[in-house]
Amino acid sequence: MSLNDSDVEAGLLTRVRLDVSYDGSAFSGWAVQPGLRTVQGCLEEGLTTVLRGPASLTVAGRTDAGVHASGQVAHLDVPAAVWDQEHARLVRRLAGVLPADVRVHAATAVPPEFDARFSALWRSYEYLIDDSDGGPDPLRRASIAAWRRSLDTDRMAAAAEALVGLHDFAAFCKHRPNATTIRTVQQFSVTRDGSLVALRVRADAFCHSMVRSLVGALAAVGEGRRPVQWPAGLLNRTERANDVAVAPAEGLRLVAVGYPPPDALGSRATQTRAVRTLPTAGEPTAE
Amino acid sequence: MSLNDSDVEAGLLTRVRLDVSYDGSAFSGWAVQPGLRTVQGCLEEGLTTVLRGPASLTVAGRTDAGVHASGQVAHLDVPAAVWDQEHARLVRRLAGVLPADVRVHAATAVPPEFDARFSALWRSYEYLIDDSDGGPDPLRRASIAAWRRSLDTDRMAAAAEALVGLHDFAAFCKHRPNATTIRTVQQFSVTRDGSLVALRVRADAFCHSMVRSLVGALAAVGEGRRPVQWPAGLLNRTERANDVAVAPAEGLRLVAVGYPPPDALGSRATQTRAVRTLPTAGEPTAE
Repeated sequence: MSLNDSDVEAGLLTRVRLDVSYDGSAFSGWAVQPGLRTVQGCLEEGLTTVLRGPASLTVAGRTDAGVHASGQVAHLDVPAAVWDQEHARLVRRLAGVLPADVRVHAATAVPPEFDARFSALWRSYEYLIDDSDGGPDPLRRASIAAWRRSLDTDRMAAAAEALVGLHDFAAFCKHRPNATTIRTVQQFSVTRDGSLVALRVRADAFCHSMVRSLVGALAAVGEGRRPVQWPAGLLNRTERANDVAVAPAEGLRLVAVGYPPPDALGSRATQTRAVRTLPTAGEPTAE
Repeated sequence: MSLNDSDVEAGLLTRVRLDVSYDGSAFSGWAVQPGLRTVQGCLEEGLTTVLRGPASLTVAGRTDAGVHASGQVAHLDVPAAVWDQEHARLVRRLAGVLPADVRVHAATAVPPEFDARFSALWRSYEYLIDDSDGGPDPLRRASIAAWRRSLDTDRMAAAAEALVGLHDFAAFCKHRPNATTIRTVQQFSVTRDGSLVALRVRADAFCHSMVRSLVGALAAVGEGRRPVQWPAGLLNRTERANDVAVAPAEGLRLVAVGYPPPDALGSRATQTRAVRTLPTAGEPTAE
């Protein structure tokens, strides 16, 4: 229970879900950091203006500097009277005060049990690479990593498939004290459309730098520098593999977050929170 | 015949087709203008570096300031000896010297009869509008016009269909002396995907500001400010209609240029040039 939860349940506060997208290029990541331009900082400032009071966001996926999102989800608690007055025009008013590189597409009242972070069942990321000689489409260059060597996507797809399942991804994670690195990768595909290679990965959660490390490992396979079995072979390690390169931030985008149906929200959040606050598991540090 | 044509036919020069894309945001259009950053200027500078000699481009569609291209086509003539030496690595070397907002995706030797401008059978443009309250996807905001009112795309599609055919588009063109405004619009569709509205129009050629004026007229229909029949009703005018708004440049993109098969290239260029250099028809001023 956070400080607000009892007020939300008593109806004094309304819990509001925001669906958010951003171009991460000019942000120092999601999370507020003193003196830096962050997505959370911009959004909380815009919300404070529009809602005429302090706004504090909880987010599904705390993206790193330079990482984008098209399907980010956050929640905040708004005084019920303010919500009743403002909700119909909130998205339009936010569009007027926010910079063009961050947008709120929807603001929806949700049950008090909804928690953008702890209710989430899965997060889905996409990583885009262009491996042509000429380089990425200029209009999409902010969200595509340029690759100088051509990639064999059949090899990459086979290596990705071998990573699906419940594993300790320590080899692919930047170490954080007391943070678990055991994750379930539910889906992992690699497809090509012309010179554009798309890697799509879905997991219950991701540890820090995990997607970009997985991409780096698969790219080594795609270039032919490593065997197809190499990334899955790293799964038995207990700490970060220094020979796995972290792919550049600009190719990465959080595309979707999955939640249970409303009537199952409470049990999911309680369950996630319990698991993640075990002293041995600690704080999740989602990418 | 341009000055180069006889040298091209004699094999001293190789005619080269370039397939080009650019983010028009930071360019003052295609055509070289003193003191301004233009696509043609950047490309000719890059080509001069890589080919170690002057480069002069002829283009299919001279786009205005702020207009983008994903399928622009240009040609130039390169000394045959330089081409033989450089062609295999030309695209990669250009990628290294050009700024990231302009890319050459292919450089191909073509028959001497190929003329990027006069051989073209048609040009195809796309105009993107987002009419949601929240505004355009931040990662695509450079190429999507934000619209504050919601658009009825069924009405717009019906109005677009009525513009297809051979007409005098004077009402939709910025006047240029001795320039014909008679054009054949071959296709014109309006579709919606969520809040993203795409207008796609193909014609033999476009006069200056024609696509953006057509979009402005259709948007007035989509907003309900004008009847569906209004844009087609303007076709009988002989000069620009001042009540047609020109839609913002950022939504517009040249997506493709169509050419005849190689064996028909010569006759097509001769035919187009003859028509367009008639004193009564004059210089085409393609958008």
